Amino acid sequence: MEDARILGVLGGMGPLASAHFMLRLTLLTPATREQDHVPAVLWSDPRVPDRTRGKQVGKADPLPWLLHGIAGLRQAGCGAIAIPCNTAHGWYEEMQATSDLPILHIVDAATADLRRQGVAGGTIGLMATAATLKMRLYQDRLAAQGWTCLIPNDSQMARLVGPAIAAVKANRMADAYAPLAEVVNDLAARGAVSVVLGCTEIPLGLQAGPQAALRVPVVDTIDALARTSIAWALAGRR
Amino acid sequence: MEDARILGVLGGMGPLASAHFMLRLTLLTPATREQDHVPAVLWSDPRVPDRTRGKQVGKADPLPWLLHGIAGLRQAGCGAIAIPCNTAHGWYEEMQATSDLPILHIVDAATADLRRQGVAGGTIGLMATAATLKMRLYQDRLAAQGWTCLIPNDSQMARLVGPAIAAVKANRMADAYAPLAEVVNDLAARGAVSVVLGCTEIPLGLQAGPQAALRVPVVDTIDALARTSIAWALAGRR
Repeated sequence: MEDARILGVLGGMGPLASAHFMLRLTLLTPATREQDHVPAVLWSDPRVPDRTRGKQVGKADPLPWLLHGIAGLRQAGCGAIAIPCNTAHGWYEEMQATSDLPILHIVDAATADLRRQGVAGGTIGLMATAATLKMRLYQDRLAAQGWTCLIPNDSQMARLVGPAIAAVKANRMADAYAPLAEVVNDLAARGAVSVVLGCTEIPLGLQAGPQAALRVPVVDTIDALARTSIAWALAGRR
Repeated sequence: MEDARILGVLGGMGPLASAHFMLRLTLLTPATREQDHVPAVLWSDPRVPDRTRGKQVGKADPLPWLLHGIAGLRQAGCGAIAIPCNTAHGWYEEMQATSDLPILHIVDAATADLRRQGVAGGTIGLMATAATLKMRLYQDRLAAQGWTCLIPNDSQMARLVGPAIAAVKANRMADAYAPLAEVVNDLAARGAVSVVLGCTEIPLGLQAGPQAALRVPVVDTIDALARTSIAWALAGRR
């Protein structure tokens, strides 16, 4: 039982996003029988305090919960950690500092997916939580690699993106589609050739309506992280 | 962090079924925000030897793998175990004997769902792996509660049900739909008023095609086990 690479998934943020990650991890793996799939442990703890609020002074700190989950995944025998929550990567350095397991960074996964889709540079849109945008989790890393990020304006964040993310966390995906599609298409109108969905609730909302209504391709960070995770797992089989 | 009930999910059998279980666990939970969802740990180990073959003499025994997963879920702090694989319940007594955690029995979940759907008795169809049928996991329990089970014939098992289950495990859901729908409708023609999908790959195959073509309602054992799991988790909140 010792030789395979077991993926640790620190999830529950939200739980639908991490369940969907497990689905995509399975569907994107080349497999002709059950035993070809990637062994994984999903730690789905939706009690982790809100990450966007956690970046504000005086609000509940998610870090102890994140470290507790990583310790649990380590104890379960996992060899690397994937975290299908973009905002949680605001604590990436603190998490990586306390763990000898590699944490697969979701922004690296997103940039790999931009290249896979043939978007080697230029102007792209970025949709994410207010905290992910404010921490500049994506903007600086992408600028260093030749992309320029357009982000929604404050009114769009408050009126469209924020409420849509909350709707997905409350199982109301149908309510999330229209506001998210409006922002994708506004970013396209402003010049984005692709839009990175830098919050794992956003692709779940956009999947609740017609994809043909979106004017540019998107980077689904659930799928991107699943692809990076599969590459890590399969590399261990050589 | 100590007061909530954490669900342990012994999965990977197959991995798509347990990922789908996590999705349904989330979608069927009444939640208005992320923190309302059920904390859970999914142990998804697709390396567990095939359960149907494991019931044959001389084939690899899945039991040590099942016990290893249960021990891992116990160590992670889980308070009960759900196993979204019907055939694995052929080792239920052995698993329960070594664990102080309650294991929520998938056949009990299926009978609760039959009643929820208003099927209080009468003739029902049962689709499952050859091992689940041969072990009579469902037939005797259902007979004791007033249902009579019709099962596919040997030719249908070899030609339709078995290959369809293997197709889902290899991510080929579209190939699984037609053979499974043919068996559902043949059981209906033979007098079944409802069909229990007693293998967690079967609902995934049937979801790949038109539901309207199925002549009777079905009991999805992924959903049934998710409902039972949510009831267990919410009972701990009072």
